[in-house]
Amino acid sequence: MVARIPTALLAAGLALVVAVPVTAQSQEYGSMHHRFRVVTVAEGFEHPWGMAFLPGGDMLVTERPGRLRIVRNGNLLPTPVEGVPPVFAVGQGGLLDVVPHPDFSSNRLVYLTYSKPQGGQASTTTVVRGRLENDRLTNVEEIFVADTEGRGHYGSRIVFSGEYMFVSVGERMASPALLEGHPAQDPTNHHGTVNRLYHDGTVPQDNPFVGQGDIEPSIWSYGHRNPQSLAVHPQTGDLWEAEHGPQGGDEVNLIEPGKNYGWPVVGFGVNYGSGQRIHDGTMRDGMEPPVHLWVPSIATSGMMIYDGDQFPGWRGSIFVGGLAGELLSRIEMDGQRALFDETLLYGIGRVRDVRQGPDGYIYLAIDDRVGAPSPIVRLEPVR
Amino acid sequence: MVARIPTALLAAGLALVVAVPVTAQSQEYGSMHHRFRVVTVAEGFEHPWGMAFLPGGDMLVTERPGRLRIVRNGNLLPTPVEGVPPVFAVGQGGLLDVVPHPDFSSNRLVYLTYSKPQGGQASTTTVVRGRLENDRLTNVEEIFVADTEGRGHYGSRIVFSGEYMFVSVGERMASPALLEGHPAQDPTNHHGTVNRLYHDGTVPQDNPFVGQGDIEPSIWSYGHRNPQSLAVHPQTGDLWEAEHGPQGGDEVNLIEPGKNYGWPVVGFGVNYGSGQRIHDGTMRDGMEPPVHLWVPSIATSGMMIYDGDQFPGWRGSIFVGGLAGELLSRIEMDGQRALFDETLLYGIGRVRDVRQGPDGYIYLAIDDRVGAPSPIVRLEPVR
Repeated sequence: MVARIPTALLAAGLALVVAVPVTAQSQEYGSMHHRFRVVTVAEGFEHPWGMAFLPGGDMLVTERPGRLRIVRNGNLLPTPVEGVPPVFAVGQGGLLDVVPHPDFSSNRLVYLTYSKPQGGQASTTTVVRGRLENDRLTNVEEIFVADTEGRGHYGSRIVFSGEYMFVSVGERMASPALLEGHPAQDPTNHHGTVNRLYHDGTVPQDNPFVGQGDIEPSIWSYGHRNPQSLAVHPQTGDLWEAEHGPQGGDEVNLIEPGKNYGWPVVGFGVNYGSGQRIHDGTMRDGMEPPVHLWVPSIATSGMMIYDGDQFPGWRGSIFVGGLAGELLSRIEMDGQRALFDETLLYGIGRVRDVRQGPDGYIYLAIDDRVGAPSPIVRLEPVR
Repeated sequence: MVARIPTALLAAGLALVVAVPVTAQSQEYGSMHHRFRVVTVAEGFEHPWGMAFLPGGDMLVTERPGRLRIVRNGNLLPTPVEGVPPVFAVGQGGLLDVVPHPDFSSNRLVYLTYSKPQGGQASTTTVVRGRLENDRLTNVEEIFVADTEGRGHYGSRIVFSGEYMFVSVGERMASPALLEGHPAQDPTNHHGTVNRLYHDGTVPQDNPFVGQGDIEPSIWSYGHRNPQSLAVHPQTGDLWEAEHGPQGGDEVNLIEPGKNYGWPVVGFGVNYGSGQRIHDGTMRDGMEPPVHLWVPSIATSGMMIYDGDQFPGWRGSIFVGGLAGELLSRIEMDGQRALFDETLLYGIGRVRDVRQGPDGYIYLAIDDRVGAPSPIVRLEPVR
């Protein structure tokens, strides 16, 4: 879709200004409620993972190898932000999500998630925050280090909700054959969890498992696989999650405190490739069923619930990016019920993140599988 | 969507000419590949179930209570076709599918499926054919009577493919708790089967189970639930089926000879209402997994694979009507692989049948739940 820029240039941090329209800019797309076009915002990112909009108009983009980039006035600044901690940039690991504090204008705090190196091949999902001033991150402090071990599947989204923040952690590819013995079924660690923290990383004392023996007090829900998607509904305040499942097992869940979402005991997926069964059934008392599934799987990543003015017909819809699916999925909702999903932009590339911009446009981070330079694009309505 | 006409008028067989545009006619709908509008073709049907187009321009429509109707020059003829056999018009039973013989122009043969009364509350899926001349059916002969017992779930679609015809039969609501002991897992009867016959109802001797003891020789595949959807791909000749499953278990299957599609041993659904598990897992060796699932369920009914000129972007897509879903679902295919489904016309009403007309428009039979007079509509492109 976009001109490929040699990785060497990218690594050198050259400014990659959007000079010419890409092919897709002239193409119009249809959908149930809106026609739209896709416009490149900036390009030349290596494995972009998270996007964030700052009050002054800047956009922050994480690159998985460990760089935090700034897009200013449509230009990708050549120099990454200084002060980002070292990351375990192996496989799925690296610098992952980025979210500004709700009061960024006054406190300049930016939150990052990443796979923290723990020696050898060990790493875990970690949250830091720091002050972003003069394009540098200072006063970086670690506020959450997940108790996990394994490879990949870091989860690793952050959302703010009032005085709280939620952080998702993946199941780190522990064998699903463990069933009830899987660490995601054992809340004395952080494998496969959504966690609720105060903004400084301390644990609210009304979290569901506080004071229950060895259970990690930060846990809000557990039994997840790889939740790369987390969003708070802008009207209802409901917490929504999507998790990257096995074949046929990508789920959307409504997250409620203390609940077990079943991985790997119950679920709808089978192993990729072999097609072999994973679960002991699809449902079980005491384990929450998904609100929505995709068949075939799309390989869910970023998630956003739209409430902007550019696409009125999409207000209240849940948008989820598809990696393997190379698409943007829109789920039309009726309250807490999913009515159906609509595939948008089939073939656009691996959609790692989806965010609503302050302008009401919908921004996508395209994450090339092998790290070829990739764009941030946005959907604009065609009226 | 349409003006309601008193059932008494309908039962009296009054001509229900399309006189004024319905609301939906002026509404345009968007979709990924095409914009379209919905135009009423004829209205005033009571539980329309099957639609067929005859070479001379007439359209045949079955009404479940037992009437075969003719739409001629846009008018629903007031008098039903004479000669239709008596039907067991109880619950889901009645006059069901209608398909003209591929050589109708020369032999005037029309095939009907229905629930044949067998005394008391007994009935079974049955196929007759007869000659349609002067708007009357004559020489009606019974060519297939399924060996089933139970309530509802008749399956009951017919498709022609070369010298063969395929007939689907439902599992008659036998308890899924029977698992391996369920009659759909026992091919010595017709519960939950797709059957292959010659046009006269005799059994091809190369059917997969011919000569295998007590197995019904007409069976082409088994282990189905309620297959109200059957279509032959116009290019590849592949036989596609959809079956109305439990909650979360509506399936699209590629039908291959001798194969077991797993009902009720494996599947993805749970019981409506209770949400209780039904299956012993989602997959098993020797049982075919679905090519596509809908979550949430749409309650699949008629099926069609498009190859017309009015909607070039939809060629090769599988269309399936949704009853409870009140929608038309389009599945974008890549060969035998389902890429995604697209919901069209959400809220249109219960779509019992979907057919491509000889004009390339897409026709839908809307089947009101309680039998209020209902229309046949068609999708026309907006260019």
